[in-house]
Amino acid sequence: MKRLAILGSTGSIGRHTLDVVASHPDQFEVVALAAGNNVELLEQQVRRFRPRFVALADETRARELARRLDSLTTEVGWGSEGVRQAAADTGADMVVSAIVGGAGLVPTMAALRAGKTLALANKETLVMAGALVTAEARARGTRILPVDSEHSAIFQCLDHGETGSVRRIVLTASGGPFRTLPQKAFATITPEDALCHPTWSMGKKITIDSATLVNKGLEVIEAQWLFDLPVDRVDVIVHPQSVIHSMVEYVDGSFLAQLGAPDMRLPIQYALMYPERRVCPAARLALDELRLLTFEAVDREKFPSLDLAYEAARAGGSWPAVLNAANEVAVQWFLDRRIGFDEIPVVIRKAMDAHPQRAIASVEDVLEVDRQVRENLERRG
Amino acid sequence: MKRLAILGSTGSIGRHTLDVVASHPDQFEVVALAAGNNVELLEQQVRRFRPRFVALADETRARELARRLDSLTTEVGWGSEGVRQAAADTGADMVVSAIVGGAGLVPTMAALRAGKTLALANKETLVMAGALVTAEARARGTRILPVDSEHSAIFQCLDHGETGSVRRIVLTASGGPFRTLPQKAFATITPEDALCHPTWSMGKKITIDSATLVNKGLEVIEAQWLFDLPVDRVDVIVHPQSVIHSMVEYVDGSFLAQLGAPDMRLPIQYALMYPERRVCPAARLALDELRLLTFEAVDREKFPSLDLAYEAARAGGSWPAVLNAANEVAVQWFLDRRIGFDEIPVVIRKAMDAHPQRAIASVEDVLEVDRQVRENLERRG
Repeated sequence: MKRLAILGSTGSIGRHTLDVVASHPDQFEVVALAAGNNVELLEQQVRRFRPRFVALADETRARELARRLDSLTTEVGWGSEGVRQAAADTGADMVVSAIVGGAGLVPTMAALRAGKTLALANKETLVMAGALVTAEARARGTRILPVDSEHSAIFQCLDHGETGSVRRIVLTASGGPFRTLPQKAFATITPEDALCHPTWSMGKKITIDSATLVNKGLEVIEAQWLFDLPVDRVDVIVHPQSVIHSMVEYVDGSFLAQLGAPDMRLPIQYALMYPERRVCPAARLALDELRLLTFEAVDREKFPSLDLAYEAARAGGSWPAVLNAANEVAVQWFLDRRIGFDEIPVVIRKAMDAHPQRAIASVEDVLEVDRQVRENLERRG
Repeated sequence: MKRLAILGSTGSIGRHTLDVVASHPDQFEVVALAAGNNVELLEQQVRRFRPRFVALADETRARELARRLDSLTTEVGWGSEGVRQAAADTGADMVVSAIVGGAGLVPTMAALRAGKTLALANKETLVMAGALVTAEARARGTRILPVDSEHSAIFQCLDHGETGSVRRIVLTASGGPFRTLPQKAFATITPEDALCHPTWSMGKKITIDSATLVNKGLEVIEAQWLFDLPVDRVDVIVHPQSVIHSMVEYVDGSFLAQLGAPDMRLPIQYALMYPERRVCPAARLALDELRLLTFEAVDREKFPSLDLAYEAARAGGSWPAVLNAANEVAVQWFLDRRIGFDEIPVVIRKAMDAHPQRAIASVEDVLEVDRQVRENLERRG
């Protein structure tokens, strides 16, 4: 039995993780769950999986949950201390880090410091603090297993992580819902338009990030840290069918690619069970329905965010954290209809220009950069 | 330095093998070459690679070669004893088995019995005597590394040979030059038509086999033995671009695929250098030229040979050897314009019906079946 703590259990990745767990009751024990505000769903999850400990972001809601769970032995925590406890203090073997956005950094780091194996869905952790996080994992001798479908694909193609003979990594991108939309129409895109992803069903933040290709930029930076490769050996190709989840090109010219249905339960299960493979509840890729796979270059005029991510990654230091914070603010502004879809990369660009790259020595440095960027944007916004 | 013996050095695989060797002069020493009748090319190869020993099929030509090589120290042999010596007696670490057709069986077996690592391009060896050959390799603790692009692809996707969590293997087929030709036109196909393969440049026999899909059938049987899987877990899908060289589906629904330019030097080098990868003289797959990959089911009405191969594999024993011998005769008849293209599977079917499946206990049994099938066909032909 592998003991799991799931941070972000009521989100899309969290729910899919529990789906995988439910399919293999003999393999996993859920010891902790942490969620944001969805008391109802968290209560259901607790009743089903009986963790020792759960945490919610908000104290009032946590107390409400504790009342509802009255007769159960599950302990309830809240706030940053609650999620830290879930990550580090509940006897988990593996922590699934699936909190959305920069908020995932601190608990993810806490899990690593407690020596937990990490199944990492929160890419912002590596974007904001890749050097610190990977150094911590190395120092503790713990493993970071990717949950993102692209990075899971690379991990599966890398023959258990050996990158010595890799020429480059090629991340595939669906291209999002606006791949074929003329650029002049970008200003009129509504949040409703952007929330319709052509191939993946995901949370709001990542769906918008997929539409701007910021998500692919974050994945490039994530790949750089996960696979210890310079960012210029990480390429992106548009593949609208999302069947090939990513590829590795070796020095001999051979490519290995991982294919599957666009169903997150597959990469989640791979991380949870690694290195074992078992039957998975994910949808199967029906080979007799496979007809056509197409590929095209990213239109970097229409999607300038991708180049911003490469620029931030090459500069290193604080810049990826600046990019990430500015993007989170811009996405929220877009969802709130305060800015147009085409202004998201403009907000990021301005933030990068307003916050010259500087060195990062600690998680506190990262959090300070994150706070400054958000404050400056809100002040001017 | 890895010492190589190359059986079939003047054929397509042999020449490509020497191309790879020439690209890595610090890695390989050629200790033996064996060829059929091409004295001129073999002489050039000897002058370039300076093997200790060479063999030709024919004594007269071998003596001619010996005269031409007068001043060199290379010893010259001939006939079946010559090729056996090349395989077993010349101090090679690895034997590249690339003799075309059933003639490859005996020297390949000799190499295994001498404990040589085998880089196997001669699929007929496994088709005719897969059980014997793989038992011999197991008994000697020697490895059989695939050279066929499809099997190399599978081998690369299998993470060094582990098949425990494999659901099935999917071999890709270009579909050959007649994929879109109406079946009623098959009777009028000429040898010239059939010798134009859309994606691969290969020898005559394998090019005709690719046009009939017998080649894919032989590959299904080869895969069964190489990867120790029942033949019904080996599937075939038509993929006309020949970019994906084959795929493995795992039990969790994840597929791994190997992609590359259609250039035999890539799988050859992978076998020669396994498990290392280095820069390869093969053409590279240019990702920015990758636009479209298509897939379709095999038309089993138009290409009945594929089902004959499955039938032979399921029956086992002597039947795969019957299929192979009948096919070799039929291909020669077709090249000699004695039969039509559409009659090749008819010849195979008749031979299978005329030679009820029986058990095989030795290479001699296999050779006897092979001889009988050929004799009967020639008598009736």
